[in-house]
Amino acid sequence: MAARRDFTRESLAAGVRAGDRRALARAITLVENSDPLAYEVVRDLYPETGSAYVVGVTGPPGVGKSSLISTLVRHVREQNRSVGVITVDPSSPFSQGALLGDRIRLADHFLDPEVFIRSMGSRGHLGGLAEASLQAMLVLDAAGKELVFLETVGTGQGEVEVIGIADTVVLVLMPGSGDSIQALKAGIMEIPDVIAAKTMLNEVRSVLSLDKERAWKPPIVLTEALSGENVPELWEKVEQHRAFLEGEGLLEQRRRENLAGEVFAVASARAKAHLERAVGDDPELRRLLGEVQSRKLDPLSAVREIMDKVFKVSGA
Amino acid sequence: MAARRDFTRESLAAGVRAGDRRALARAITLVENSDPLAYEVVRDLYPETGSAYVVGVTGPPGVGKSSLISTLVRHVREQNRSVGVITVDPSSPFSQGALLGDRIRLADHFLDPEVFIRSMGSRGHLGGLAEASLQAMLVLDAAGKELVFLETVGTGQGEVEVIGIADTVVLVLMPGSGDSIQALKAGIMEIPDVIAAKTMLNEVRSVLSLDKERAWKPPIVLTEALSGENVPELWEKVEQHRAFLEGEGLLEQRRRENLAGEVFAVASARAKAHLERAVGDDPELRRLLGEVQSRKLDPLSAVREIMDKVFKVSGA
Repeated sequence: MAARRDFTRESLAAGVRAGDRRALARAITLVENSDPLAYEVVRDLYPETGSAYVVGVTGPPGVGKSSLISTLVRHVREQNRSVGVITVDPSSPFSQGALLGDRIRLADHFLDPEVFIRSMGSRGHLGGLAEASLQAMLVLDAAGKELVFLETVGTGQGEVEVIGIADTVVLVLMPGSGDSIQALKAGIMEIPDVIAAKTMLNEVRSVLSLDKERAWKPPIVLTEALSGENVPELWEKVEQHRAFLEGEGLLEQRRRENLAGEVFAVASARAKAHLERAVGDDPELRRLLGEVQSRKLDPLSAVREIMDKVFKVSGA
Repeated sequence: MAARRDFTRESLAAGVRAGDRRALARAITLVENSDPLAYEVVRDLYPETGSAYVVGVTGPPGVGKSSLISTLVRHVREQNRSVGVITVDPSSPFSQGALLGDRIRLADHFLDPEVFIRSMGSRGHLGGLAEASLQAMLVLDAAGKELVFLETVGTGQGEVEVIGIADTVVLVLMPGSGDSIQALKAGIMEIPDVIAAKTMLNEVRSVLSLDKERAWKPPIVLTEALSGENVPELWEKVEQHRAFLEGEGLLEQRRRENLAGEVFAVASARAKAHLERAVGDDPELRRLLGEVQSRKLDPLSAVREIMDKVFKVSGA
């Protein structure tokens, strides 16, 4: 699919700045394709970013994250705030088939010029999902969106990296989503900032109380995404978390840490992609792999030789 | 903690070959510490590996994977087969606190000289968990263990890489472990080879039937890990899967792919570790990160400069 080059670097950046929907859509498509133009435009826009507040919404697939975001968007639209939504969950109704209720609810927002919704494909990004979602978020930030919702399933390295840019992380749980609670317990899932759950989950409380050191105690809000019950209360907790971060001077610190984490995540993903390409293209490296497979050369020795040849890194 | 150097490269390799428990324990500790001696010993032993059959046991934390492995171990010990167990699940009773029933059951095996059980810490490995568990598995393989069980939670990049070395993957599900089923549905979790579940899960069936192309249809076995119910039937399915792979000449192919995957996983983890170290040590790279944080330099430009400087890779 050849991209139509009707936008120049300057006109695309100007269009994004003005919040023009066509420019936004084009810029994010270019981001998804790892197009050099996207890189240049985000580079130009970056100094103007940092105004958007990024709310990560995470939780197992099918738990109702999209419905919740949809009702949250309606709630903040009543306050006249402009909104962007980025979803990287392959099971999200934003991405594909949705229940009738969802579809109608989402459709409301698709018609609202102050709401921009985009789902990111999960394949083909040079620097992984972290890169694509970070760049898309920066585009929405530069476009003046006051709030950006970032939807992603909670576990998985890539997912953790995506959510790593959020200012506030909301975890959505359902009764019976035992895996998530176990994952919290086992320390596999990061402790979120706010929890939306359908019923009071004593198990979650007990996990959270283990972490008494935290100055911010993650509140649990009983929320029914489909009916919208307690959604204003949930949003209030997000705002309280934001006020807490800002009041303590922690927002700046969190953002600094988040940005460093994203740089490492993107660089690592690029290193991996580069590695796979290099081995694919190089008969000598493919031969090394063959020797591992025929049990002549042990895997770590092969790794060392590959690292040395591809990255000029010895003994890493 | 200084390692006692009573083993030489030769005596450690010889001890592992002989299946000596002290040598095995030492070798795996050295693997965990990324000790050069472990690297050398595995390198020496590697040409002798490939006899062990590796059964990955995956599923959400707390679902009963350890109990199931424990009963499977008892079952295969009745066939007089030697066994190794590696667990990388932080919530595993093998790793830490266990229910009384688990502890007694596990204790049986700790006294059996033909069973070697080791839990791997999840931190501090140069090449990540994939490297540590791969190397530990190769040690057990070289020690003549006929079967190696590899326990890990199912989601998360690191976990997927750990399970990536298994010849047969068993997924353990409980009623209410909805996250796992949703993760299967959403394609976030790889389709396993055999499923152990407490009740017939129509949802799982419907996910599996979507993948009609597979020559091997993953069977679902109703298994009660704690009581040991249907554990022989579950093992029978693992053996059937093995026979299928061997009969079709697919085992060799799967192992080739698995080994290549592990080499990439380990190399990527090492690249990431190297990157973080390099940035930490280099004032110029830290300055780049600082410019990102002060919104002077966009993240991708910083990534490019870091990749260029650390890996001598341009434009990756």
